[in-house]
Amino acid sequence: MKAELIAVGTEILLGEITDTNTPFIARELANLGIETYFQSTVGDNPERLQATIEIAAKRSDLVILSGGLGPTKDDLTKQTVAKYVHEELVIDPKAMAKIERYYAETNRTMTANNRIQAMYFKDSRALTNRTGFAVGIFYQQAQGPDFLLLPGPPSEFEPMVSEQVVPLLQRTYFNDQLLRSRVLRFFGIGESQLTTDLSALIVNQTNPTVAPYAKTNEVTLRLTAKAANEMEAQRLLDGLEAQIQKIAGAYFYGYGEDNSLAKVVTRKLQERKLTISTIEGYTAGLLAADLSNARPDDTILSGGQVVTKLTSTPQKNLTSKEETIALAKQIQTKTRSDWAIAIALPTVENTTTGEKIGHVWLALSDRQQQVTTQLVTFSTIRSFTKQRLVMDALSLINRVLK
Amino acid sequence: MKAELIAVGTEILLGEITDTNTPFIARELANLGIETYFQSTVGDNPERLQATIEIAAKRSDLVILSGGLGPTKDDLTKQTVAKYVHEELVIDPKAMAKIERYYAETNRTMTANNRIQAMYFKDSRALTNRTGFAVGIFYQQAQGPDFLLLPGPPSEFEPMVSEQVVPLLQRTYFNDQLLRSRVLRFFGIGESQLTTDLSALIVNQTNPTVAPYAKTNEVTLRLTAKAANEMEAQRLLDGLEAQIQKIAGAYFYGYGEDNSLAKVVTRKLQERKLTISTIEGYTAGLLAADLSNARPDDTILSGGQVVTKLTSTPQKNLTSKEETIALAKQIQTKTRSDWAIAIALPTVENTTTGEKIGHVWLALSDRQQQVTTQLVTFSTIRSFTKQRLVMDALSLINRVLK
Repeated sequence: MKAELIAVGTEILLGEITDTNTPFIARELANLGIETYFQSTVGDNPERLQATIEIAAKRSDLVILSGGLGPTKDDLTKQTVAKYVHEELVIDPKAMAKIERYYAETNRTMTANNRIQAMYFKDSRALTNRTGFAVGIFYQQAQGPDFLLLPGPPSEFEPMVSEQVVPLLQRTYFNDQLLRSRVLRFFGIGESQLTTDLSALIVNQTNPTVAPYAKTNEVTLRLTAKAANEMEAQRLLDGLEAQIQKIAGAYFYGYGEDNSLAKVVTRKLQERKLTISTIEGYTAGLLAADLSNARPDDTILSGGQVVTKLTSTPQKNLTSKEETIALAKQIQTKTRSDWAIAIALPTVENTTTGEKIGHVWLALSDRQQQVTTQLVTFSTIRSFTKQRLVMDALSLINRVLK
Repeated sequence: MKAELIAVGTEILLGEITDTNTPFIARELANLGIETYFQSTVGDNPERLQATIEIAAKRSDLVILSGGLGPTKDDLTKQTVAKYVHEELVIDPKAMAKIERYYAETNRTMTANNRIQAMYFKDSRALTNRTGFAVGIFYQQAQGPDFLLLPGPPSEFEPMVSEQVVPLLQRTYFNDQLLRSRVLRFFGIGESQLTTDLSALIVNQTNPTVAPYAKTNEVTLRLTAKAANEMEAQRLLDGLEAQIQKIAGAYFYGYGEDNSLAKVVTRKLQERKLTISTIEGYTAGLLAADLSNARPDDTILSGGQVVTKLTSTPQKNLTSKEETIALAKQIQTKTRSDWAIAIALPTVENTTTGEKIGHVWLALSDRQQQVTTQLVTFSTIRSFTKQRLVMDALSLINRVLK
């Protein structure tokens, strides 16, 4: 089963808006086990749209178009596909009534071109637009690919996909089979290193499959299993995860697409009823902000402080190990938090090659002022160094929590 | 002159990342007057990538590929295009030295597959990657379209496009004509409102042109003029900007693509030799981090503090106007900074419609502890509220600086 996505809209071609519909439905298709080999964008131009449809129809079983279903004269997707599949456009009375009601309630006169929003192909299935007016269309033909036409505005596209399209595709194409995914998150190892270490697993897997994904400062692996039932799917995922953990477990920190090192750390702190305070030099508040964002209820963070060259008395060296330890103890005492973490100011060396290398001390103190320290080294070639340092600090907390 | 964009990466096809490179360069091409009729995305698969290149080569003069230049075995863009144009891959010594240096400095062993990142076509031009390792490639052939290969990570793609690709394309394709852009930045007005207010200007302009772009919490307008010489170009831009400032000047805060409200505010503070300190409730350090990021030399920020429910003594109400003013004065006294800004904790009301509305007090104190306050209201349906609140705080500082 191969699907192809076509986003229609000149404003996308010009970069005036970023198309989020395509990645949104692509994720849903991937989870359904529908393969997507090609995605394209074309402007509001019937000839070029038809040319794009012809290419897609040759190589895909399902052609999904988003955008161009509106009432303006630029909106030609519906008419262009109808012409291509030789289908007649007919009115969906329910959709038409909704449009007329809206214009009546807002005391505006409905222009004729609004009728097109309520139209679908005579032999197709119209998809109700809960959050807008333009109906979606699902069309299956004896010869050639199926077509799915969806509205462009994400506020209409996303609910229509989640509420109607996904169940419809599941029923239509996979009545029998179940699909389950599991996301593993890693910090402290680069994508190229992780994929090299796991290459045997990544290459040879067909079910479950492994998909690596490099995010800023971290890497995730998505395992996806096809199975006849839930138990079988989980058994497949467990088996593959065990092999991965054996190789890369040292860098693994948590599960799930909607997760982060800050969420994992703050969840653990909350479970252990531990509060923490921060004192930050180089990161200047970024760690406190991350801890607070991860747990908006604010029960973990006892407070934070940002120290700079100006606040420190001259004789103090805010880059030294000793001073970093002193800072951690100081903020712990001040806020009476269970734990306290200090991030120092950086020392930067110019190497012989003219490249810069930075060092920053981290210190984590507990209530008894037992302190764990770490020296983080990074090259200034690498971007996001402050955010990366926040991750290093979170990782230090996570290690001590183990 | 017709360009076509091809984004390469299975993680884009799967929706695991949203391709922001294509809209980014599409805007630059539009500015240069290069038309884009088609954009497509293909996975890390040499056959399908080649098929996509063949289609593009038939209908476009310039084929731009992004992604697939990295060190993993999925990264095959360079090899696939080289094969298609029958070009040999050779090492760029400068790029190779940078890779080796990085691995030496970080005491990691360089895997062989990293060498590919330093390779370009024998008869092409290699584009230096300032923020990463993989070189870009610009290749012109006697027969058929030109090719431009660019790295996938936006942190590498965007600087390479702005700093090297745009001037290169200008020189290569528009040698005769001068093209000058000016970016105006606005905060506190939405894109739809701004474009409505300026619609007459936006629609009727042909030279200079006006292109609006909605960023998170701000809107930019890019004015682009074509002219025979620099003076004429600037005259055209000045004329149009004057008209825009007359209408929307109240929301204008600065110029330039690589600018931000934090940069503008910190630059003004530095010029006036003013130091500032922060005390943050809801934003929990984000404002301090933004001020510090905007001026890494750290001479403006006298220090910051993060306050939470836990740190405040129970009788204190960290959401009240009075307490916000007290916090600003307190941190000013403590850090002896010229100015001090306080961001309170939010109060949240549930409206009859079940929707939430939040209020947060801001207070800015000067050395004489003269305080300016502001109550920020936002609806929780709006995202990025913390970052938005940081912008509101910066905007308050900017207003008082005027």
